[in-house]
Amino acid sequence: MLSADAVTHNPEVDLPGLPLPLTGRTSFFAILGDPIAQAGSPALFNTAFRRRGWPAVLVPMQVKAADLAMTLRGLRGIGNLRGLVLTTPHKIAAVGLVDSIGAEARLVGSINAIRCGRDGRWHGENFDGLGCLRGLQMAGHSVAGRRVLVVGTGGAGAAVAAAIAREGPSSLRLHDVDAVRAGHVCAVLRATFGAVSIVVGPPDLRGVDIVINCTPLGMEGNPGPSVDAEGLAPGMVVADLVIEPEMTELLQAASSRGCIVHPGRRTLEGQVDALCTFFEGESHG
Amino acid sequence: MLSADAVTHNPEVDLPGLPLPLTGRTSFFAILGDPIAQAGSPALFNTAFRRRGWPAVLVPMQVKAADLAMTLRGLRGIGNLRGLVLTTPHKIAAVGLVDSIGAEARLVGSINAIRCGRDGRWHGENFDGLGCLRGLQMAGHSVAGRRVLVVGTGGAGAAVAAAIAREGPSSLRLHDVDAVRAGHVCAVLRATFGAVSIVVGPPDLRGVDIVINCTPLGMEGNPGPSVDAEGLAPGMVVADLVIEPEMTELLQAASSRGCIVHPGRRTLEGQVDALCTFFEGESHG
Repeated sequence: MLSADAVTHNPEVDLPGLPLPLTGRTSFFAILGDPIAQAGSPALFNTAFRRRGWPAVLVPMQVKAADLAMTLRGLRGIGNLRGLVLTTPHKIAAVGLVDSIGAEARLVGSINAIRCGRDGRWHGENFDGLGCLRGLQMAGHSVAGRRVLVVGTGGAGAAVAAAIAREGPSSLRLHDVDAVRAGHVCAVLRATFGAVSIVVGPPDLRGVDIVINCTPLGMEGNPGPSVDAEGLAPGMVVADLVIEPEMTELLQAASSRGCIVHPGRRTLEGQVDALCTFFEGESHG
Repeated sequence: MLSADAVTHNPEVDLPGLPLPLTGRTSFFAILGDPIAQAGSPALFNTAFRRRGWPAVLVPMQVKAADLAMTLRGLRGIGNLRGLVLTTPHKIAAVGLVDSIGAEARLVGSINAIRCGRDGRWHGENFDGLGCLRGLQMAGHSVAGRRVLVVGTGGAGAAVAAAIAREGPSSLRLHDVDAVRAGHVCAVLRATFGAVSIVVGPPDLRGVDIVINCTPLGMEGNPGPSVDAEGLAPGMVVADLVIEPEMTELLQAASSRGCIVHPGRRTLEGQVDALCTFFEGESHG
């Protein structure tokens, strides 16, 4: 058996949820959200940083919406801060607090990641759509030619809808309790993806092949589901972006009705590689 | 051999420099300084947190003196921030940026730790003197009745001088390139420890039993030593608060002249337990 020191310093030894040993030279990253306890990113990213041999750590930061601007201003003073991941409720507000944003972020109007450049410039981009799509693909679920319903068109939902539209579904329906927001996202996507049938409509599951919950409904203290479970039919792919609990009310109902269940962790796993590349500065979307 | 998961989640397995696996529920701590690369705290505290079973991590933050106020203001927005450790050049400036300070901090005019209370109140205290004294004691070096020279009377030096004075040395000499600062610290300590002979004087090693370097001289890019090595004599205890390199120019010279060498790491190790207790809120100095 190896000594503890040899184990901890060897990136080829996976220590789940742990980065390489921390020193004064460790770079740092954070995920900001409210709530934050449910976040899967600390476990996933620290494992990924270690595997890459990066001397870096990602920490969770509980930050209220009202404190976001002040907190980001303060974080700019930290020289070894390399990047931020943003979750609810910060994805839209943060757009106005960075120096530049990428193409996907411009399209969907929100960011879920900030690269904190060594030159002091902060660049935002959104990887939720890419992550959702890759997660579905990794599980063998193709989107092209399918009838897709996206429920929730906030920061993550708009990004997911854009990634779906890009793949050429046979139809894409958007639903949000805020009809104005859904209508706005629908108009933006129609302008970009003219060949795809994109509509705003009810969260009705009839004739749907893939449904994706992009609302926070189903998280602790936020009872779900966001759609009427009566419409869940065998063979339907039911995806949820909620990470904890892993089996949300929606996914439990889907499972009991013979649907194919796709938990929120997959969307996160689908974007860890892309986010690491983004943080390295190789991606300038 | 245990599975990686069983090892990482077991606080009784030491993984040097590593905390327990990170999740969204991890509390966080930071050490702020400029430079920060040399800091030993990330390795020591993460090992200590893990051993205590605390779901917590301490990260290094490189923060310039001019950015301290802005950064601390921003960090107040982070709900799961539990504490900060401060190193050069922040120990004195931070006194004005917390809500209250403890007795030792009032005496020496600087803090090296902030407890970030769940009620939003920040309380500062200084553990450098305690750490230095405990470190010396752990190495078997008594201070009572000895002739001590403290070089450097800034944030750390004043705290060390106070802790030494409290032990009753036969004499305590203070030196600083800033004579006004040394004089101020001397006056404060004389008022508190009237029975001890405390003077300001040159960094002359004749007749000294213990010399403690509390200046940054000896750190990378800051050539030392802070005293004339010619005066180093066999049997003299030579302590350095500089942590990296471990063997500073001063300690190398001391070693080659038969002195007893006491590296900076000992002062840090001497205060980790006290700082953890302070962060827990059991100490309200």
